[in-house]
Amino acid sequence: MNNNTDVLENLIEEFSKLPQIGRKTAQRLAMHITRRPKEDVEKFSRALLEIKDKLRFCNVCCNITEYEICRICDSPKRSNNVICIVEEPQDVLAIEKTNEFKGKYHVLHGIISPLDGIGPNDIKISELLRRLGGESGSEVEELILALNPTVEGETTILYLSRLIKPLDIKITRIARGIPIGSDLEFADEVTLAKALEGRVVV
Amino acid sequence: MNNNTDVLENLIEEFSKLPQIGRKTAQRLAMHITRRPKEDVEKFSRALLEIKDKLRFCNVCCNITEYEICRICDSPKRSNNVICIVEEPQDVLAIEKTNEFKGKYHVLHGIISPLDGIGPNDIKISELLRRLGGESGSEVEELILALNPTVEGETTILYLSRLIKPLDIKITRIARGIPIGSDLEFADEVTLAKALEGRVVV
Repeated sequence: MNNNTDVLENLIEEFSKLPQIGRKTAQRLAMHITRRPKEDVEKFSRALLEIKDKLRFCNVCCNITEYEICRICDSPKRSNNVICIVEEPQDVLAIEKTNEFKGKYHVLHGIISPLDGIGPNDIKISELLRRLGGESGSEVEELILALNPTVEGETTILYLSRLIKPLDIKITRIARGIPIGSDLEFADEVTLAKALEGRVVV
Repeated sequence: MNNNTDVLENLIEEFSKLPQIGRKTAQRLAMHITRRPKEDVEKFSRALLEIKDKLRFCNVCCNITEYEICRICDSPKRSNNVICIVEEPQDVLAIEKTNEFKGKYHVLHGIISPLDGIGPNDIKISELLRRLGGESGSEVEELILALNPTVEGETTILYLSRLIKPLDIKITRIARGIPIGSDLEFADEVTLAKALEGRVVV
């Protein structure tokens, strides 16, 4: 006999569908909800709906936004000369936090992964090409590939660099190396090799 | 500049309010929601609302339920002779999973914790007393205190055992000892001492 009430079971199931939330955590979260005041739960419920009602992809960079064109693409302070290509919207947030990048972005919403059946047409590559061929496309001098250094990331980098080569735009990728605060001793060989390879003059 | 849209920021904040969900996880969960189909998100949103619309405390044992009296209290197959006292509804689920207990429960919805300002009147102790003094109260032969072996658990056990002593009901507590599959070597001294103390004849 499952002793959970159907309503509770229902919410536990919904929480379980979230990434990296197992059955036990889902149960804890659902129990937490039962203890919250009704207004709080309604606020949470509304926040969920609004995501689908109000969010869309930016017409230019495909980042998620409430507007036709996102704040970054719309900003006159950001340069059109450099486009940083990332896998997911959260990568934009991560890079924005560094306060180091003043160009624009392009969000692929995925990465080429033949094993998962994700090909070039399943991510926002045609949107990137349209953008490079469009009005402001001639301004673009550099594409920074800020993709994860995984097999899929490498595949995507290879694919994009071949695809874009004829356009005569400089293509770079972010450095692979030892993370700040980390210890050489604990770095894996590949990272260490890439760190050596990517050494810079001090 | 916070580059998150307000709608997204809003949902991230709602997720952050959940226990043990930090800002980073909340961001990941919110991003996940943006990628889900609209129907799925609506289902999640509804499941949240239903918790507050449909769930209540059982009139007898204070467990959460959709009915006036929960399935366990209402079951003719469960004995009225033993009541197992637990801190939270999830403890009922945990004990039910063992399939070993055929009595009824009483959910305190908290534990006496003077440091957190939680006294006996803040948890469902008066409901327990009313229950023991009520119609089926005379049937009760044993109260099993299945509370966590923490300082607060011990305080609550002490308080309850003193309070219930005059009622002439047997009061027991669940055993403290070495968890199954664990190793003596890694047990702390207190657990080991309690395991020794609670030894049983084989």
